[in-house]
Amino acid sequence: MTDTNRLKLLNDALDQFAVDRDWDQFHNPKNLCMALSGEVGELIEHFQWLTPEQSERLSDEKLAAVTAEMADVYLYLIRLAQKLDVDLVDAAFEKIAVNARKYPAERVRGSAKKYTEYDKPS
Amino acid sequence: MTDTNRLKLLNDALDQFAVDRDWDQFHNPKNLCMALSGEVGELIEHFQWLTPEQSERLSDEKLAAVTAEMADVYLYLIRLAQKLDVDLVDAAFEKIAVNARKYPAERVRGSAKKYTEYDKPS
Amino acid sequence: MTDTNRLKLLNDALDQFAVDRDWDQFHNPKNLCMALSGEVGELIEHFQWLTPEQSERLSDEKLAAVTAEMADVYLYLIRLAQKLDVDLVDAAFEKIAVNARKYPAERVRGSAKKYTEYDKPS
Amino acid sequence: MTDTNRLKLLNDALDQFAVDRDWDQFHNPKNLCMALSGEVGELIEHFQWLTPEQSERLSDEKLAAVTAEMADVYLYLIRLAQKLDVDLVDAAFEKIAVNARKYPAERVRGSAKKYTEYDKPS
Repeated sequence: MTDTNRLKLLNDALDQFAVDRDWDQFHNPKNLCMALSGEVGELIEHFQWLTPEQSERLSDEKLAAVTAEMADVYLYLIRLAQKLDVDLVDAAFEKIAVNARKYPAERVRGSAKKYTEYDKPS
Repeated sequence: MTDTNRLKLLNDALDQFAVDRDWDQFHNPKNLCMALSGEVGELIEHFQWLTPEQSERLSDEKLAAVTAEMADVYLYLIRLAQKLDVDLVDAAFEKIAVNARKYPAERVRGSAKKYTEYDKPS
Repeated sequence: MTDTNRLKLLNDALDQFAVDRDWDQFHNPKNLCMALSGEVGELIEHFQWLTPEQSERLSDEKLAAVTAEMADVYLYLIRLAQKLDVDLVDAAFEKIAVNARKYPAERVRGSAKKYTEYDKPS
Repeated sequence: MTDTNRLKLLNDALDQFAVDRDWDQFHNPKNLCMALSGEVGELIEHFQWLTPEQSERLSDEKLAAVTAEMADVYLYLIRLAQKLDVDLVDAAFEKIAVNARKYPAERVRGSAKKYTEYDKPS
């Protein structure tokens, strides 16, 4: 199956899920954005007390829980994209191009300063 | 680009972006989860003062800004998935199946109560 | 009791809570900021499917749950302030003064446009 | 200002700020919860690429920026409390008491496991 077909199936499944439950009435962009934010909150709780190093070596049980939260984040992001008629993959490619112009590799290499800081006279 | 590998190309582009800037050193799951959360915060700011109805009728300018934030959310989610070796699309399909069992359509139709509330004796 | 004394007691109680559990080791600003974000995620989940009008008329049970989440947000905010040696009340007064300059009342009355939008030539 | 009523004065200032701008119309609990979440997103962006150790040694410039974001978080939390008629300090004391029962010191000392994990048979 091509990625395009996989993503289409996923979109269709998500749409059907809401239709079957008559939940579409709740799925306006404002609400979906809140639901997305709530799921990210659940995701962040898994990492809040871990050191960066521990976050790279999750137990199987923890990874399964984290994966489920990531899926929830992704599902609400897709649902929001459906409602706004946004193609997430296209938008992502476009954003990488924008970011590449904002943060030229030769200028920012190895630094995590936000791009605006590079615009200050030094 | 063929349809087959849009997601693979997106993953590769994102990976290369970090390598070119030597930013991989910052991309542990804990940090990426925070970055994801920060982008969701930027997304939510676009919707916070809108009514639900207004959120369904964004101006072209607003939609472009919202799309860019959604792309940022998606990119950090993909990056996190890369670091944890998670297939987002598989995880999403699996989560829909889990949710379908948690929220049987005939039981929850038209209600937004959280599934735990359905487990209470009535 | 004066407000200053109440806040001092609250700070002391929170500090003692962490000391008693040997949790201070986890309470660096990065981690506390994540914990704060996680609690806000739990708060937002209570409101995500409500209309703005419904959010103004919470049931007693819902209000109790929301209050508990707000307390969690406040506690982590205080804890972060302790670690960064920030006086939250002073900072809040200062921020109101800054905001008053950014958003002059006569200019922004009744509009929720972000202040940057007022800076654009019209 | 006397110590007695610092919090009351802060509440009044915040209320007046909204009245002067006719912004009260936007300040329902749902919207305020989103605004709170957006500010936490801005706060988290300051910490996302820092190590835990770096987060404990912020530069003066960074600390000033972080303090301003914490003030924004606090202001929206107070505003939300106003609208829901919640006394934040009372709620915080009450939550500490609840947490003390959930996480008995002698049982959880030095561990960051979430309290639910302690309920599992070991």
